[in-house]
Amino acid sequence: MKIWIKHATVVTMDDSERILYNANVYIIDKHISAVSTDIDHNFIADQIIDARQNVIMPGLINTHSHIPMVLLRNHANDVNLEDWLYKHIFPVETKLSAKDIYHGTRLGILEMISTGTTTFVDMYFHVEEIAKATKELKMRAYLGIGITKDSLERNLSQTKELFNYYKNDDLINIIVAPHAVYTNDESDLIQAGKLAKELGSLETIHLNESWNEVNNSMEKYNTTPLLEAYKTGNLTSKTIVAHAVHLNDEEIKLIQEVGCSLAHNPCSNLKLSSGIMEVHKLLSKGINVTLGTDGAASNNNLDMFEEMKFASLLQKGVFGQPDMLNAWDTLKMATVNGAKALHRENELGKIKAGYLADLIMVNLNNLNHTPRANIIDSLVYSTSGSDVMMTMINGEILYQYHEFKLADKQSVINMANYIYNKITNKE
Amino acid sequence: MKIWIKHATVVTMDDSERILYNANVYIIDKHISAVSTDIDHNFIADQIIDARQNVIMPGLINTHSHIPMVLLRNHANDVNLEDWLYKHIFPVETKLSAKDIYHGTRLGILEMISTGTTTFVDMYFHVEEIAKATKELKMRAYLGIGITKDSLERNLSQTKELFNYYKNDDLINIIVAPHAVYTNDESDLIQAGKLAKELGSLETIHLNESWNEVNNSMEKYNTTPLLEAYKTGNLTSKTIVAHAVHLNDEEIKLIQEVGCSLAHNPCSNLKLSSGIMEVHKLLSKGINVTLGTDGAASNNNLDMFEEMKFASLLQKGVFGQPDMLNAWDTLKMATVNGAKALHRENELGKIKAGYLADLIMVNLNNLNHTPRANIIDSLVYSTSGSDVMMTMINGEILYQYHEFKLADKQSVINMANYIYNKITNKE
Repeated sequence: MKIWIKHATVVTMDDSERILYNANVYIIDKHISAVSTDIDHNFIADQIIDARQNVIMPGLINTHSHIPMVLLRNHANDVNLEDWLYKHIFPVETKLSAKDIYHGTRLGILEMISTGTTTFVDMYFHVEEIAKATKELKMRAYLGIGITKDSLERNLSQTKELFNYYKNDDLINIIVAPHAVYTNDESDLIQAGKLAKELGSLETIHLNESWNEVNNSMEKYNTTPLLEAYKTGNLTSKTIVAHAVHLNDEEIKLIQEVGCSLAHNPCSNLKLSSGIMEVHKLLSKGINVTLGTDGAASNNNLDMFEEMKFASLLQKGVFGQPDMLNAWDTLKMATVNGAKALHRENELGKIKAGYLADLIMVNLNNLNHTPRANIIDSLVYSTSGSDVMMTMINGEILYQYHEFKLADKQSVINMANYIYNKITNKE
Repeated sequence: MKIWIKHATVVTMDDSERILYNANVYIIDKHISAVSTDIDHNFIADQIIDARQNVIMPGLINTHSHIPMVLLRNHANDVNLEDWLYKHIFPVETKLSAKDIYHGTRLGILEMISTGTTTFVDMYFHVEEIAKATKELKMRAYLGIGITKDSLERNLSQTKELFNYYKNDDLINIIVAPHAVYTNDESDLIQAGKLAKELGSLETIHLNESWNEVNNSMEKYNTTPLLEAYKTGNLTSKTIVAHAVHLNDEEIKLIQEVGCSLAHNPCSNLKLSSGIMEVHKLLSKGINVTLGTDGAASNNNLDMFEEMKFASLLQKGVFGQPDMLNAWDTLKMATVNGAKALHRENELGKIKAGYLADLIMVNLNNLNHTPRANIIDSLVYSTSGSDVMMTMINGEILYQYHEFKLADKQSVINMANYIYNKITNKE
């Protein structure tokens, strides 16, 4: 399949911050074959997309989510973390069947695709269903089973099994995902770390999200969650640490040495009063900070454009300097840095010849993007996910002009409402 | 004109937090004549709106804006306040002609109407043009000329002139708007206060936005901007104070006694590193806190739904408790409290018989509102302005299913781009 995108304003995200105007993007099968302001008269396209008045940019990479939790969106808000988890979330979460998880994943994926996300990193349960739904809807994903001490052996063996099943898959990548230090014993963590090493897979884990978590770890292990994760072999260059809100100097130094990535989730961290990551400081030390939405139940949507605005404005407002986390660095977090966290910076996160064709088209001819002043700034400060006009993953157009190619939106909505009513006994 | 809205989920915003399902809203000319789950078989409608799967709720009230500044959106970001104002904003702002202001207002109004705002409170210059554009597009507004010492006499006399011109207007209200303490001398402020009293008008003024402003006032007047405004007769129950980020106990007590309203602008305050208002504390003391976007140049859009999410999440995240500024209180800020600030709590801000028909329809049948759990929460945490399906002001439908009734969107966009290129010498 050969696709020619013409008349595009291309936000390449390359190191020189290059933007091309009235440019062409040529796609052959899964890859971008060329990006140029010249027209290739020998390129015989199967499909032509006119991107006039639109930006073509890399698809966004959401590095921390619990996708099926869209099913619990707005089930409980405005309560403290313990009550939220133990009184509201856990009681209904246990009622979710494998099939429910499958349908919840479909809802989450449609929301992500329609707001510009092309890859997500996830941790949840019934991952076989998440993988199935993701594969069917042709999204790119890194999926981990949340490993906890309660079902350690099963979690480890299922992770291995799924890893082998999807080993050669184009879109689905299975990763090792110990849930957190506080939900595992030290020996469990050691086993998880070993498995990641054995499989050579990426790993993701929640660490240093709240002071409460840090303090409990100090009591139990006489060290912080992050240092405990390191000690047990779960902090490597292949680890994506979710949250990392509260970090001391020793931990920051270790993160620099190890070269792990940190997934910042500003909406969720604010909403659950977890704290605010000092992103500007971590970036200045060369640490790879990426962006995530967390589960929709603590956000409460999956719009990465909104997440970018929160991330950038929060640094300026809370840490006191309006030049902190500028628009360019914010956009990098959601694209280039995300690709780096996945160790695929040479394949994802840029509009560049040879890269995978994971890209989105954003309408600039909207009230909120007028006047056409600075495009990068506009994308971070003025865009909503609803401005996305087309989403392409692995060279396939999955969403265009508010229509999905592979799913019926209304059926997905109806099914999710049905499941919510069922698990909350509303019917 | 008689309009019947049927099958609506009505978020009434009345004190009992009542939501009506499958309800009818009857509108006769400018007013809501009835709201009921019963069908009035004697109501012969000129127009019927099927609001199935949609919320009908009061239109949002944006209590602080500089609408024509949409023309400077994304002109300069990520710089400190002084550089932003003196190096970037002021040099191009002075190039804006009266006609430019007119066209900028048109752009801003279309953006507001399409994202659910039905009333705005504004301070700028060439207010005669802002009023003209607002009147043509049939939006409700409270407009003030930003009074500064440089053009005091002209500002005062023009305010009076415009006030008298629009005295009996249904939609346009002229208010007195001394820009700030730092841009006026004490004698100027006294004159502005006198004028507001003479006209019996509302007043708006920027106060205590940044520490810098507070400290400068302490040096010049040996008192804070807010106390200086009070001393000069500019802080009454009819005053809407923009920002009020930094308040000491004496000031909070005075605000309670005086009964003025405070307009919170979370995005702008974050973006310019001004600080973060302790909204939860002020509300607990019975102070009327409302919501504003500020100018789009420091936001950078006019989406009040986004502003609500910022307001609520910020309190939880910065002041440490997830139950702070819950969804209901946040929605009140953007509706009921706004109406109260305008001294029209018996006419605006609720869906109620006898109230003015300023209302909006929000699509719940969207991915981001699924499942249909808690509607109030969904409106604050999951909605984007793009979910607005219909906007009615004063009984007139001005926007429906992404189409404007009174303006051609593309022409407005083109004109704003033309003006921006002109004032920045890009053409």
